[in-house]
Amino acid sequence: MARNIQSLERAAAMLRLLAGGERRLGLSEVASALGLAKGTAHGILRTLQAEGFVEQDPASGRYQLGAELLRLGNSYLDVHELRARALVWTDDLARSSGESVYVGVLHQQGVLIMHHVFRPDDSRQVLEVGAMQPLHSTALGKVLSAYDPVAHTEAVEAERTAFTPRTVTEPARFEELLDLIRARGWAGDTEETWDGVASVAAPIFDRRRMPVGAVGITGAVERVCKEGEIRSDLVAAVRDCARSVSRDLGAGRF
Amino acid sequence: MARNIQSLERAAAMLRLLAGGERRLGLSEVASALGLAKGTAHGILRTLQAEGFVEQDPASGRYQLGAELLRLGNSYLDVHELRARALVWTDDLARSSGESVYVGVLHQQGVLIMHHVFRPDDSRQVLEVGAMQPLHSTALGKVLSAYDPVAHTEAVEAERTAFTPRTVTEPARFEELLDLIRARGWAGDTEETWDGVASVAAPIFDRRRMPVGAVGITGAVERVCKEGEIRSDLVAAVRDCARSVSRDLGAGRF
Repeated sequence: MARNIQSLERAAAMLRLLAGGERRLGLSEVASALGLAKGTAHGILRTLQAEGFVEQDPASGRYQLGAELLRLGNSYLDVHELRARALVWTDDLARSSGESVYVGVLHQQGVLIMHHVFRPDDSRQVLEVGAMQPLHSTALGKVLSAYDPVAHTEAVEAERTAFTPRTVTEPARFEELLDLIRARGWAGDTEETWDGVASVAAPIFDRRRMPVGAVGITGAVERVCKEGEIRSDLVAAVRDCARSVSRDLGAGRF
Repeated sequence: MARNIQSLERAAAMLRLLAGGERRLGLSEVASALGLAKGTAHGILRTLQAEGFVEQDPASGRYQLGAELLRLGNSYLDVHELRARALVWTDDLARSSGESVYVGVLHQQGVLIMHHVFRPDDSRQVLEVGAMQPLHSTALGKVLSAYDPVAHTEAVEAERTAFTPRTVTEPARFEELLDLIRARGWAGDTEETWDGVASVAAPIFDRRRMPVGAVGITGAVERVCKEGEIRSDLVAAVRDCARSVSRDLGAGRF
């Protein structure tokens, strides 16, 4: 079987390195983090810089991610059918629920936020498109883990961090939770990821009935829950939205 | 002088190819567009796919941009000081002006939108972070062309497309326009890029007094202009915002 191209793999590892942790690194730090000779690392960084994937701070000489990644990430969104189909339905969901709406897909070991509609009030909110959420504790992540076998493997094999006392980390209990999610058709997260925050999500299917993503709402536990349970009108609104997006993607009626 | 790494340059060219035009391409199309042998193109595509930069549609076999670009683009935004400093001031500007606010930086031959605050009303709006605007006709682009020598070169050497009858394309008139912008400290665009749309922008400087970006508002010409001129209260609000962001970046008082 043909091998992948080593310089490309190394360049990708450099971009991942600059995307996490320190984010502004000198040549020696990049080289030692990736176990490369300084000359080798410099050749890759120089090429990445020429292509706009990396920028070098003129004062410190340190490297950071470059603007071309933002432009390409935007083009990725433009081409993504799930996001295009979700735009109208998620706007409606934010309006009817009064909460923020997220659409997520499986990416690496987590949920990548593809689309985010702000809660329809005047509060200051930060756009989270491109951010990652954990698979094992969020409503979006648990929906993907329940319906997508690849996500399931990732969630089961991952170290399930206890973000709050309510996070389910124990393997058998986690599998029970996924069974319940498949039986009900939706997942909740009541303060399992962030204290004071609850969310509810449902799966999106495409024309081949494959789970391609999840849509959900997130908000203050005081608004989203009633007597300790996620409000059933919100569950219904999220599931309606997921069905509408699925039908727009060509999935058969449920 | 050391040469850049060819396989990396080719991979970057593939990503740019997939970011423009068709956006979903088969192996033969990628290979012929870049003048590569099919085996060479396939090796690069396969590696890009393994790293998440490219995805292959299972049904058609065509390639498109991958989710890792969205994640890295988001990390780029997180690390960018200009955007972080602009967040609060641009929210205030959107509120006081009632119009959408954009922050842009020079990238390649255009303005890359780094930050976008929606017009504070209930209308449906599409986020334009990561999108590109032309240098020669938009208020953001003209500000960068007037203050940043690199942007100036790009704008002068580019083919200046006439998007509307009001776009300035003729070299001598374009230079006069830039002189006026430098003299006044701000740029306008009254239906020079889009019919019915006007914008106004001002430069942002860093601690070395280098122009690092521009901030501006964009809206319907009926609201932004009065008797054919951009409303002076909006010009003042945009310039106030640009000064505030510049001071936060360490620039001296004006």
